[in-house]
Amino acid sequence: MKLAMIGLGRMGGNMAHRLVQQGFEVVAYDRDPAAVAEAVTKGATGASDLAVIPDMLPSPAIYWLMLPAGEITEKVMREVGGLAREGDIIVDGGNSFWKHDLERSKWLKERGLTFIDVGVSGGVWGLERGYCMMIGGDDAAVKHIDPILRALAPGPGTIPRTHRPKTQGEWQAEMGYVHCGPAGAGHFVKMVHNGIEYGMMQAYAEGFDILKQRAKQDLPEEMRFELNLSDISEVWRRGSVISSWLLDLIAIALAGDQSLSKFSGKVADSGEGRWTIDAAIEEAVPVDVLAAALFARFRSRVEFSFADQLLSAMRFGFGGHVEVPQ
Amino acid sequence: MKLAMIGLGRMGGNMAHRLVQQGFEVVAYDRDPAAVAEAVTKGATGASDLAVIPDMLPSPAIYWLMLPAGEITEKVMREVGGLAREGDIIVDGGNSFWKHDLERSKWLKERGLTFIDVGVSGGVWGLERGYCMMIGGDDAAVKHIDPILRALAPGPGTIPRTHRPKTQGEWQAEMGYVHCGPAGAGHFVKMVHNGIEYGMMQAYAEGFDILKQRAKQDLPEEMRFELNLSDISEVWRRGSVISSWLLDLIAIALAGDQSLSKFSGKVADSGEGRWTIDAAIEEAVPVDVLAAALFARFRSRVEFSFADQLLSAMRFGFGGHVEVPQ
Amino acid sequence: MKLAMIGLGRMGGNMAHRLVQQGFEVVAYDRDPAAVAEAVTKGATGASDLAVIPDMLPSPAIYWLMLPAGEITEKVMREVGGLAREGDIIVDGGNSFWKHDLERSKWLKERGLTFIDVGVSGGVWGLERGYCMMIGGDDAAVKHIDPILRALAPGPGTIPRTHRPKTQGEWQAEMGYVHCGPAGAGHFVKMVHNGIEYGMMQAYAEGFDILKQRAKQDLPEEMRFELNLSDISEVWRRGSVISSWLLDLIAIALAGDQSLSKFSGKVADSGEGRWTIDAAIEEAVPVDVLAAALFARFRSRVEFSFADQLLSAMRFGFGGHVEVPQ
Amino acid sequence: MKLAMIGLGRMGGNMAHRLVQQGFEVVAYDRDPAAVAEAVTKGATGASDLAVIPDMLPSPAIYWLMLPAGEITEKVMREVGGLAREGDIIVDGGNSFWKHDLERSKWLKERGLTFIDVGVSGGVWGLERGYCMMIGGDDAAVKHIDPILRALAPGPGTIPRTHRPKTQGEWQAEMGYVHCGPAGAGHFVKMVHNGIEYGMMQAYAEGFDILKQRAKQDLPEEMRFELNLSDISEVWRRGSVISSWLLDLIAIALAGDQSLSKFSGKVADSGEGRWTIDAAIEEAVPVDVLAAALFARFRSRVEFSFADQLLSAMRFGFGGHVEVPQ
Repeated sequence: MKLAMIGLGRMGGNMAHRLVQQGFEVVAYDRDPAAVAEAVTKGATGASDLAVIPDMLPSPAIYWLMLPAGEITEKVMREVGGLAREGDIIVDGGNSFWKHDLERSKWLKERGLTFIDVGVSGGVWGLERGYCMMIGGDDAAVKHIDPILRALAPGPGTIPRTHRPKTQGEWQAEMGYVHCGPAGAGHFVKMVHNGIEYGMMQAYAEGFDILKQRAKQDLPEEMRFELNLSDISEVWRRGSVISSWLLDLIAIALAGDQSLSKFSGKVADSGEGRWTIDAAIEEAVPVDVLAAALFARFRSRVEFSFADQLLSAMRFGFGGHVEVPQ
Repeated sequence: MKLAMIGLGRMGGNMAHRLVQQGFEVVAYDRDPAAVAEAVTKGATGASDLAVIPDMLPSPAIYWLMLPAGEITEKVMREVGGLAREGDIIVDGGNSFWKHDLERSKWLKERGLTFIDVGVSGGVWGLERGYCMMIGGDDAAVKHIDPILRALAPGPGTIPRTHRPKTQGEWQAEMGYVHCGPAGAGHFVKMVHNGIEYGMMQAYAEGFDILKQRAKQDLPEEMRFELNLSDISEVWRRGSVISSWLLDLIAIALAGDQSLSKFSGKVADSGEGRWTIDAAIEEAVPVDVLAAALFARFRSRVEFSFADQLLSAMRFGFGGHVEVPQ
Repeated sequence: MKLAMIGLGRMGGNMAHRLVQQGFEVVAYDRDPAAVAEAVTKGATGASDLAVIPDMLPSPAIYWLMLPAGEITEKVMREVGGLAREGDIIVDGGNSFWKHDLERSKWLKERGLTFIDVGVSGGVWGLERGYCMMIGGDDAAVKHIDPILRALAPGPGTIPRTHRPKTQGEWQAEMGYVHCGPAGAGHFVKMVHNGIEYGMMQAYAEGFDILKQRAKQDLPEEMRFELNLSDISEVWRRGSVISSWLLDLIAIALAGDQSLSKFSGKVADSGEGRWTIDAAIEEAVPVDVLAAALFARFRSRVEFSFADQLLSAMRFGFGGHVEVPQ
Repeated sequence: MKLAMIGLGRMGGNMAHRLVQQGFEVVAYDRDPAAVAEAVTKGATGASDLAVIPDMLPSPAIYWLMLPAGEITEKVMREVGGLAREGDIIVDGGNSFWKHDLERSKWLKERGLTFIDVGVSGGVWGLERGYCMMIGGDDAAVKHIDPILRALAPGPGTIPRTHRPKTQGEWQAEMGYVHCGPAGAGHFVKMVHNGIEYGMMQAYAEGFDILKQRAKQDLPEEMRFELNLSDISEVWRRGSVISSWLLDLIAIALAGDQSLSKFSGKVADSGEGRWTIDAAIEEAVPVDVLAAALFARFRSRVEFSFADQLLSAMRFGFGGHVEVPQ
């Protein structure tokens, strides 16, 4: 099977690599020629220009876009939509906003093309571990690219099988990918995945902060502990209710440097945490934890906030308080 | 009527002053002789030492302690409890933790003394506006000090009267003070008052922050507004649902300097916000807003948090992200 | 001065009434003839149909729409936009989403018409107290309707004047209305106003819940208080830091029935609380309190949530816990 | 090695069983004779009474209490403290409040006894998977019971080893248990573990709620998805950033019944979620997520809240709104 991988960054490059490893023919394109050259060394066929790709692929052609969400995806989607031929399949594997999928899918359909959205989790570890994928789009098209999905997916691995009451055939989800619904559904599910990720990360972060601050000098001595965070993260990995892959990563980080001094404490957020709140509000679902996790990141990026200044101004107004922070 | 005012800081000094103005005899004591001298110029009788006060008061003596909550109140309460004579009344008008009242009340009762706790709101404006008071303690003793309470209270003022369905006698609460229940109840209600205050302040603070950041250069131009926060705070004072005294204070602050540049953004918290969360947890009452308001103050006092560093460490772990804050 | 008031519900009807009282000529229209008839009894001129209004108004005509936000406003705006003549002014006084203003303003401008958005606070009390108004739109048009705005506004009233350091001319905001910026700015500010309102309301609600639950039978007896919430709400109205108009309303409600038994506890939300979160996320402003206030309303409207069921399912999974709620 | 296991419920019974399996001599006691009989069938020696245990154990005796936190633990600790002989070791493996450990440790020390606190995670799965343990107490005593801890712990298993930069000896934490610090430190760390657990559970719960409500009929049709939650929970177990043991349990629950109809949605909380907030407040650490997770459980247990009723009362007051929930 043959496909074009468009966008060869951290994610796209590794995915092309994994597909080549599994016997696929991959036409690799990136606007950076060095990235293309790198992919070629891994066994892909390089494309110097988007325009040459249609002639390098069998029909229906499969274009897999692996680009940063936003303007670049929009631009390249338009270009590929212009180049592609009737019946071709265009996959957006980036972190696009699922509502954009609805428009793109419609626009492509009007041109006789089929759109598939694939939300991909797995980060830089995916080359080795496989990519967990959530897919949206028409049944036939998703079925057509199934070999690709299966090759990228982690497979069942050593994860214990979930007992299911009714006998059922092969369970796609056990392979690590799942067709969630029509166009947009894949990115929707991936978005919620990331929303949960924010909440889980913040839960760990707050917990470890409590552990660390327990050594604070202003606590009464008998209530003060100097805790070894590296040991604690490690011990929780085995047998505890809160073991997870995120905790594995915490253990790795803390084993290297318990003070995490190389991290400034300013934390970026990608769109998905924000869109998750938006989706929840549309549905009137209370999401206190997911929202608080997002807001903590916002707060991390400013030295002080106007809100805090206004609190002090009010305190000064009613109590004559001049802040001498505790 | 005569009483001793012990502690002549911002609150106690003004309360002594207000009482003298209303015809009370006030024995004024503070460990700082200058504060005593100041009270004497306002018409109080100075006391150079706690020990001389018992002989300066009629029986039953009324000791009104107006001290910072915590160790100082504990220490002076012990001293006064040792000096006072059977039947005397000891009032704690500070911001003590209500559970301490339970112990102090018991301890004083064993010595034949009566404890009253008075939670006082009004800040530095109380001299002029009067003090809103929430009172706990035995009926008889609270009744005994009623003239003092009435003199300190704001009185009905120009605030519109609340219509009450059943004809009732004079309504103490309309005078701006209320006997809430047994010992501890006054400080309990004052504590919740402050908890609410935290929540309201944070609501305003977040709202004004949204208004201010609407001028951010990274927003699309047509979605950007340069808003005059001083005008907005002023307009909301009249006819709007969110008019309040806190908003009056905001308007004053913003009329002076819209940028609030003299406030660093580090915001202290007194115990009451914390104790409110404690009380809510005891009762299993969800208090998302009151807790978030407290946590925002905690966050304001650190430059960056270990929690945030750990988020970045995880992001680096799974995605190779090096934070370039947005 | 003459204008058309379109939409004679709780808000529009009273506004027409207030304007007539102040000497304005008001052409009143509503799709419900009874509402028109009612307005006529108050001194307005009735219009039986939108189409007849243009000939009833001098040029430039002023159309003030006072309709529920959403489809109805959109529909009527389109109709009025079709009927109006070059140079006419169309005011949207409803609670429209400010981003819709941007589109509407553009669309009307293309037709030679001017759009003004007015965010109005004051609820059913506005007839008597006046309406607090936040205005967006072109300077000239806003200046043109100034007499109307001034008549609707509360005026300075008895609210203490804010001291301003620099001598300035008349201060519009003191009259209770303010021109915030270009089209959309009025609704934007009104939206944030409502966001703050949600937060303040929730702060009070949580605080009073703590007071009420303090009587819970499962608390140790000495930590239990039976508090009179009506008294407490009343006393806080005078001299306390948390006095506000919302608290006045709480006092009225609790004086009638402390148990609030006529309220089911299901709380609706209008769009503005949601949009406020959206605006904050666009700006990366942390709004923990405003969001929590919105989520509490969402939660209030379901008997139990799937989220809660899933918590129980996990608890059963790892601990064999069958929930016996405390 | 020999020890007494006191308390043979879900946790203690399985722990006794695991120890017997690994060659330990276990004296088993429970106030319920049936539980003792059950333990005897598993190979333990039964004790009919606490008082007989001292003579059944070598010196220094090891008493492992595995009881519900609170009064029962307190009572039995007092009894065992009275029976034990100088030099004996008393272990509290329950979920006690760590501040109680400080008192108990002191009290036992005065009697020549040594206290060890062990926070245990693993739930009903521990018999098979082993118990993750966090330990507080004196070095010598903890070292003395090391064989027991090692037998109960999960061991390294198949969990990938964390790379540590410096060569170090055997890493206790890799075995699934860790000596955290002096008395109280074990329960402190376990408490934070549970606080994190609450936050993670709530993050999943909110995320799955968003997925489920996406089928809501009041959403526009193109924005509605009928998602298979069982598939989604399964797919996230493989290769995704949010894989965890809690997610494994979710997958099991959803494979059985996607509607979770056997769970009422009322969720209990044990003390540890509450104490975590208490600890964070002592340290001034913002814990928005951990607190929100606790509050969601509080809210789940009431049909409607007084807070919500008060919101409606205010809405009625200013807007004449009678709630017609959306």
